[in-house]
Amino acid sequence: MQTEAQRDALQVVLVSPRNPLNIGAAARAMANFGFRRLKVVAPFAPTWREARSAVGAEELLQNAESTECLAEAVSACTLVIGTGTLTYRRPEQKVVLLPLLAPLVSQELARGGHVALVFGPEKHGLTREDLSYCQILVEIPTDPGQPSMNLGQAVAVCLYELAVGEGRAIGQKTTPEAETRPCTEAAKAAAPSGRLELVAGVIEETMREAGYSPKTMQAANRHDLRLTLRRLTLSEQDTRRILGLFRRILWRLKHTPVRDDKPD
Amino acid sequence: MQTEAQRDALQVVLVSPRNPLNIGAAARAMANFGFRRLKVVAPFAPTWREARSAVGAEELLQNAESTECLAEAVSACTLVIGTGTLTYRRPEQKVVLLPLLAPLVSQELARGGHVALVFGPEKHGLTREDLSYCQILVEIPTDPGQPSMNLGQAVAVCLYELAVGEGRAIGQKTTPEAETRPCTEAAKAAAPSGRLELVAGVIEETMREAGYSPKTMQAANRHDLRLTLRRLTLSEQDTRRILGLFRRILWRLKHTPVRDDKPD
Repeated sequence: MQTEAQRDALQVVLVSPRNPLNIGAAARAMANFGFRRLKVVAPFAPTWREARSAVGAEELLQNAESTECLAEAVSACTLVIGTGTLTYRRPEQKVVLLPLLAPLVSQELARGGHVALVFGPEKHGLTREDLSYCQILVEIPTDPGQPSMNLGQAVAVCLYELAVGEGRAIGQKTTPEAETRPCTEAAKAAAPSGRLELVAGVIEETMREAGYSPKTMQAANRHDLRLTLRRLTLSEQDTRRILGLFRRILWRLKHTPVRDDKPD
Repeated sequence: MQTEAQRDALQVVLVSPRNPLNIGAAARAMANFGFRRLKVVAPFAPTWREARSAVGAEELLQNAESTECLAEAVSACTLVIGTGTLTYRRPEQKVVLLPLLAPLVSQELARGGHVALVFGPEKHGLTREDLSYCQILVEIPTDPGQPSMNLGQAVAVCLYELAVGEGRAIGQKTTPEAETRPCTEAAKAAAPSGRLELVAGVIEETMREAGYSPKTMQAANRHDLRLTLRRLTLSEQDTRRILGLFRRILWRLKHTPVRDDKPD
């Protein structure tokens, strides 16, 4: 069971919801389970207006923020969790079954991290681009015959699990995660998503400047780089060092004449 | 985890629902978690017609039965479980918190019993009369500030718990890590130590070549770098990419004249 402050460090993010009833339903489930921070990414404007005037969970909806893009919504988050039906996908991230998610989230909140639980649009869920901002994906163990959940119900089930799952897990041994990450640096919260974007940007610029890969590969490289940076769970200090080194390299590369000969 | 036959011995009963969307939502949640038997008690006729023509979970709704009264709906059941917000009531039955319900239900189903999970109307929930048909009441542990759940969401949360709760109790001895599905890249063995030393060597050489840090810091940097590379759990592919990038950078740095001016 998280403290109130810890629950406020968890935000629910709805990406482009189309149905105002679903925004209201998500807000109500949040209120039911004691969570208060809602962000809505690129909402369809009439939907957003209608949802905010809905009855129930009014305060939560009034305080909800809307952002232009997912990157902006999760920029301060140290653990970004994607949701959705994974039956037809081959995810590039670690997939955690919902009944096992609570200890991971509580651990992150306990060490001062910020967590985002991200839900995609009703029709098709999160895109591959959206998923590239997520460190882990959570899978609700649904029936293969009807795997896809209604948005408001999926939010309710996930938040129920996060609210009560930890309490249920009391008595379990500490997670291997906690046991295998004893060093001081790893014990600190991971660098937030926005910071990782900064790192990715500097590395990308270095790649270009060093002529690392052809232009046609740059989009694929960017995608891989984003995924990799999230998988590695970098600390703030790691990001400071990487930024320092790459900025130094960039400065050196830019202050020297470019030559056209090939590597030996 | 119940067998299919056991799940068919569990029925969801909605008493006098007013909103056809809620009947559809309940049916969808049932399909999501592998339950098929829905009964609706004394539905408002237009609501019931509209719900049965809704898209999604069609077969389940076509096979749903409507009855005149709750007594009739649960007459064949050996365990009748009432749901609802109990904050303002003094229940006469045993109250079980939802996270503890699954073992009771599974036990009943395993011994050939029939179970009903009964949900009241949206506005005021089950009456005292309705509750008198229930052996036990289940309480969803919601926030005191907003205890009352949306009907469709309450059904989803209860069925999620019944579908996975038992498995969770069984799986409690295994570690969460063991049950998570790792992503393709992280699933591979981490790069061996010797490979990490190679990576460290190339990064160190780049640091020197770029004039990243004074000579006096080099031993400390090497130490930190070694620790960091191990903490991040790099895959073979990660090390290939890092080596590729840093060798390219090194080549560029070495093939350009060194200048003595300082970074701006």
